[in-house]
Amino acid sequence: MAGCSEFTLIGRYLTGLGAARADVTLGVGDDAAILQSPADPWLLSALDTLIEDVHFPGDMPAEAVGYRALAVNLSDIAAMGGQPRWAVVGLTLPAMDEDWVAGFARGLDAIAQTHEVAVVGGDVTRGPRAVSVQIAGTSALPPIRRDTACAGDDVWVSGRLGEAAGGLAVWQAGQQGEPRWAGLVDAFLRPVPRLCLGQALQGIAHAAIDVSDGLLADAGHIASQSGVAIDLARAALRPSARLQAFGGTAQATAWLCSGGDDYALCFTAPVTARSTVAQAAQNARTPVRRIGQVRHGHGVLLDGVAVGGAHTGYRHFER
Amino acid sequence: MAGCSEFTLIGRYLTGLGAARADVTLGVGDDAAILQSPADPWLLSALDTLIEDVHFPGDMPAEAVGYRALAVNLSDIAAMGGQPRWAVVGLTLPAMDEDWVAGFARGLDAIAQTHEVAVVGGDVTRGPRAVSVQIAGTSALPPIRRDTACAGDDVWVSGRLGEAAGGLAVWQAGQQGEPRWAGLVDAFLRPVPRLCLGQALQGIAHAAIDVSDGLLADAGHIASQSGVAIDLARAALRPSARLQAFGGTAQATAWLCSGGDDYALCFTAPVTARSTVAQAAQNARTPVRRIGQVRHGHGVLLDGVAVGGAHTGYRHFER
Repeated sequence: MAGCSEFTLIGRYLTGLGAARADVTLGVGDDAAILQSPADPWLLSALDTLIEDVHFPGDMPAEAVGYRALAVNLSDIAAMGGQPRWAVVGLTLPAMDEDWVAGFARGLDAIAQTHEVAVVGGDVTRGPRAVSVQIAGTSALPPIRRDTACAGDDVWVSGRLGEAAGGLAVWQAGQQGEPRWAGLVDAFLRPVPRLCLGQALQGIAHAAIDVSDGLLADAGHIASQSGVAIDLARAALRPSARLQAFGGTAQATAWLCSGGDDYALCFTAPVTARSTVAQAAQNARTPVRRIGQVRHGHGVLLDGVAVGGAHTGYRHFER
Repeated sequence: MAGCSEFTLIGRYLTGLGAARADVTLGVGDDAAILQSPADPWLLSALDTLIEDVHFPGDMPAEAVGYRALAVNLSDIAAMGGQPRWAVVGLTLPAMDEDWVAGFARGLDAIAQTHEVAVVGGDVTRGPRAVSVQIAGTSALPPIRRDTACAGDDVWVSGRLGEAAGGLAVWQAGQQGEPRWAGLVDAFLRPVPRLCLGQALQGIAHAAIDVSDGLLADAGHIASQSGVAIDLARAALRPSARLQAFGGTAQATAWLCSGGDDYALCFTAPVTARSTVAQAAQNARTPVRRIGQVRHGHGVLLDGVAVGGAHTGYRHFER
C-alpha cells in the first residue's frame, strides 16, 4: 500500500478524543465502536447536524465548531436528565485543511473531557463543511420528557436567554474584539450544556426541553406535545443588561424570545416543588427563574394572549 | 403558534419508521430517544455520512438514498457480527421537497423493517443534500474486530465484488433501463448488508471488515491494524460474467479490487475452520469464497507481490 493518505491523516485527529472511559472496549478505528452495555435501565440517543453558514458562520473558529458540535448534543441529554457517555462524529470537509481539523479536534476534546464523554467513532468525508454528532447517554431514573407537562405547573428557565443570539450578532458585526461584548461572544461560542441541572431535576420536573430553536418555539413544543398551553409572563422575559446594551431593548427581547443556541433548559414543575427546584438548581450551580404557568388549552401565550407565528423560533426552510 | 411549518412536516416523515421494537420507550420527537438498556453485554455504535455527488449521484432515486443510508451502517454492524437495533438519522436538504423526503423515508423504512431496526431519532436541516445515520447494535458474543487476524489464516470474501461499482457506471452511462444490466444496477441501488453472515461468523472468524472502500483498501486495513500481510490470489479475483460483459475484463477487475459499495464482508479464519466457515455461510445463505492467506509481514500482496498505491480504494481527498 502507498503511504498514509491525507484522508487517513484527518481520521487520526478524531482518534482518542475525550475521556478515557472504562466502558469503551474499542473506540475509533474499526467498523463500529465496541462498548460495554450499561447497568442503568435507560439508554438515550440523539443526533444533531450543524451546517456551515446555517448553524455557524464560516469564519467561526474551528475550535468553537468542534466545541459546539458536541455541546448541542450534550444539551439534548441534559434536557432528559441523562448522563452522557459516548459520541460518534461525522465530519464533512470541502478540502484537506489540517489546521482546521486540529482546531476542531481540540474544541471537541475539551468539552468531551469536561463532561466525561468518550469520542468512540468518526467518519470523515469530502463535501460542503458540516458536522453530525450522535450522543448516547444513560439514565438511572426515568428520563424527563416533553410530553408530560401538567396544567398548573410552573414554567422555569435556566440561564440568560438570548445572549447566544446576541453574541452571533456581535460576531457578524465584526465587534468580537470589544471587551464589553466578550460575555455575549462567549455565550455564542461556548454554550454550556446544563447537564447537572437536568440530572438534579429528574424526579422533580414534569417536562423539560433544551432551548435550541428559541424560547417561544421550544415552549410551544412542550405545549403541543403535552396537550397544554404555556402562558409566559412578559415581565419575566427581561433580557440581560449587556444584551440590551448591545442590541437595544426591543432587539434584545426578540433574541430572548426567538434566538436559539443558548442551550438553556426550559422545564415545568408543580407549584408545590418550588423550593425543591430552587435547591436542585443551587446544587447544580445553575440559576433558574420562573417565567410562567402551564394552563389548560393549547399554544404559547404572553400574559394570557396567544403568540402569533412571527414570534416563533428559527425555521430552516422559511428564510 | 402559527400552523405547522414545512420544516415540521418534513420531520414527521421521519417519525415511526422501521420496526416497532419493544425496547423503544420513546422514539422521534423529544430531545433524545429513550431506549431500554440491552441485556447483551456489548453495545456497538457506528456513523456514516453520505454526500450527494460524492457517495451517490444527484439523480439517484430518493428511495435508494434512504435505503443506502441505513444499509452502509447495517454493514458496519454486520462486520462486527452484531444485531442492529436503533438508528438515528440526520437529513440535510437544500430546499423543501416533500416528494423526495417521502421517497427517502420509504427506502429507509423498507430496509429498517427487514432488519428489525427502529428509527428512533431524526434531525432535518437546510443545506447541501447529505444524510448521516448512526446505528446502535448489540452483541451477545465478543464482536469481530479488524485487528485480530493471524498469520496462517485464510482470507474470505462474500458476494460478487465490484458489481456495485459497475452498477454505478451503468447508471452514469444512462443505461439503467437495459434489462441485461439490471443485476448490476440492483447491486448499486440495493446493496445487501451481510448481517446473518456476520452473526454466523462470531466465534469462528478471527477478523472481519466490510468492503466499503474497495477490497484492496479494506484488506489493507485488516493488514495494518492486525500487523500482518494479506496475500491475495489473482486467480481468485475474477469478476462476475455480467460485470465483465458490461465493462470488459480489465475494468471489471479494477472495480472488483478498488470499487466500494458492495458491502461484502472480507474476513479471516483459521485453515482448520474451513468447513465450519462453509457451514456458517450456508446457514446464512450467503456465498463466500477463499481469496488468499494471511502472512507475516505487512501490506497487501497479489500472488506474493506488494500492491502499489494506484490499486487502492477510494480516497476522498485525492480526486
